[in-house]
Amino acid sequence: VRLALVGFGNVGRRFVELLRGPYGRILRRAGVHVRVTGIATARHGSAIDARGLSLSRCLKARSLQALHTGRPVASSLDFMRRVPADVLLELTTLDPRGGQPAIGHVRAGLRRGLHVITANKGPAACGLRSLLTLARKKRRRFLFEGAVMDGTPVFNLVARCLPGVRVLGFRGMLNTTTARILSGMEKGTSFAAALREMQDAGIAEADPANDIEGWDAAAKGCAIANALMDANTRPSQVERVGIAEVTPDDVRAALRMRNKIRLIVRGEREGRRVRVSVAPEALPQDDVLVAADQDGVLILETDLMGEIGILEGPSGVDQTAYALLSDLMAIAAERD
Amino acid sequence: VRLALVGFGNVGRRFVELLRGPYGRILRRAGVHVRVTGIATARHGSAIDARGLSLSRCLKARSLQALHTGRPVASSLDFMRRVPADVLLELTTLDPRGGQPAIGHVRAGLRRGLHVITANKGPAACGLRSLLTLARKKRRRFLFEGAVMDGTPVFNLVARCLPGVRVLGFRGMLNTTTARILSGMEKGTSFAAALREMQDAGIAEADPANDIEGWDAAAKGCAIANALMDANTRPSQVERVGIAEVTPDDVRAALRMRNKIRLIVRGEREGRRVRVSVAPEALPQDDVLVAADQDGVLILETDLMGEIGILEGPSGVDQTAYALLSDLMAIAAERD
Repeated sequence: VRLALVGFGNVGRRFVELLRGPYGRILRRAGVHVRVTGIATARHGSAIDARGLSLSRCLKARSLQALHTGRPVASSLDFMRRVPADVLLELTTLDPRGGQPAIGHVRAGLRRGLHVITANKGPAACGLRSLLTLARKKRRRFLFEGAVMDGTPVFNLVARCLPGVRVLGFRGMLNTTTARILSGMEKGTSFAAALREMQDAGIAEADPANDIEGWDAAAKGCAIANALMDANTRPSQVERVGIAEVTPDDVRAALRMRNKIRLIVRGEREGRRVRVSVAPEALPQDDVLVAADQDGVLILETDLMGEIGILEGPSGVDQTAYALLSDLMAIAAERD
Repeated sequence: VRLALVGFGNVGRRFVELLRGPYGRILRRAGVHVRVTGIATARHGSAIDARGLSLSRCLKARSLQALHTGRPVASSLDFMRRVPADVLLELTTLDPRGGQPAIGHVRAGLRRGLHVITANKGPAACGLRSLLTLARKKRRRFLFEGAVMDGTPVFNLVARCLPGVRVLGFRGMLNTTTARILSGMEKGTSFAAALREMQDAGIAEADPANDIEGWDAAAKGCAIANALMDANTRPSQVERVGIAEVTPDDVRAALRMRNKIRLIVRGEREGRRVRVSVAPEALPQDDVLVAADQDGVLILETDLMGEIGILEGPSGVDQTAYALLSDLMAIAAERD
């Protein structure tokens, strides 16, 4: 299987590192031999080599340009037209409100007949229906397990483990940054200090407004609604309240009532629409949505199975990288 | 696909009811046509009909004998030798300490070359390794999703959604009866009254000692250790403390410290062994293991994905019946 990566930041680099170690072993055991034939970045050059790039050199190089063979790559779309690949990994940084540039990359990959895997929530949140239609037409897969709760199985869980089950609604705590800010405030840390901690740890989105104003949670809610409830919604349609207005007094008052405030995403059917909302809610301390030490909690309401929940423990880039492996294994299994 | 059921209690009956409705539709949509060719019970007779039994008559009949064709069925093993079937559903009532009679039924089914599905935890808890070896030799599947947390995906989650991931350990709240007794005691209900409520609702095991003394939790812990950590342990080897000694004073003292007491199962590697233990623990109110309104909580510690959790909301026989459908769909998919 020939892989092309668009975007080579934390997630892409970690994926490639693990491909040289445990991921490579897992793939080989499944009879899958993987070659990375191209990597495109916005600021560190791009490289294509049909014989397979040296992964250690890619990880070490300050610019990928030196590893490139053939005529120069003009743009990411030029890269995608030319890279000799079977599977495209779309890993660019994202605007969660509009979903670009990820959507354009996914579409270009599918049009060319590549399977596409992304860890970005944008494509599932902002344009899933047309992308899945395109994928079906091209008989290729478009997978995005990493879009929500990093690599914790959400989309694959429903697709592979709950055949025939209909998702009727959901509720979740899906944004780690706001959860950590609010739990910091419960311990007396100021909003600003808690946010700075998240940014220093590389957990907060580059633009903190994406977390604080609820855009990240809204995009995740849309991805779930679109993928699991066959909705056709987008972040701009979400009823969205962020946590910017939550004061230390609010947090303390909630604690006195044995409640915790968290940014909660909800999805429910309303006639033929699916209504997605994001807002801070004060919930009892023993409500599973506010449980300690969880980076994400998602409860699915279903027809045949009642409520099923999924929990994501303390997570980072390793989990997101694993989502790519898991999706890649699914594609490889189908090619057999 | 020809199905034979051994055991026709709450779970078996619910499965057959749903087979006439939503389960039948789901199977047909997947191109699977199902016929029930035999049902064996201990006290209500047995019936075999190669052309397929009338499900509505089976559900209504006081004894299955009237629906039987051919010479009488002498025993459940005689039934299993003769029933013309592809898949055996093992649904008898269980002794969770020794795993019988379920283990004998599973073995007989596999020996005859049937795929076997059970909702019983006994076979996975007490004899998994030899049963899986037999299944491999016969090129048949032995599946048991319903053994732990009813139909909530546990075994299928790891097998289908976490390829290559190693489970390093686990902790869980897996026994509903003790959780409801203890949460009743937090609200002032007596142990005995809370237990009676569970028995009246049909949630407690027939022999309350299985719940109270931790045998049920121990069997579930062994099933998880054997299936997901390649252990070879059994309930008698579990370090097991039940909740019989937990007093109202203990519960109140825990509450004052903002803790809740629950019966917790833990599994961890200790050299080449997996150590499984069951004991009441006092955990902080916001620990996910004691979250409100969950009939089961399981946290898996993994190598590549950190901690992943699975939650089972308020559940009953519908969830266990779904586990059978989910396993059946997996077998049907492989037969294609």
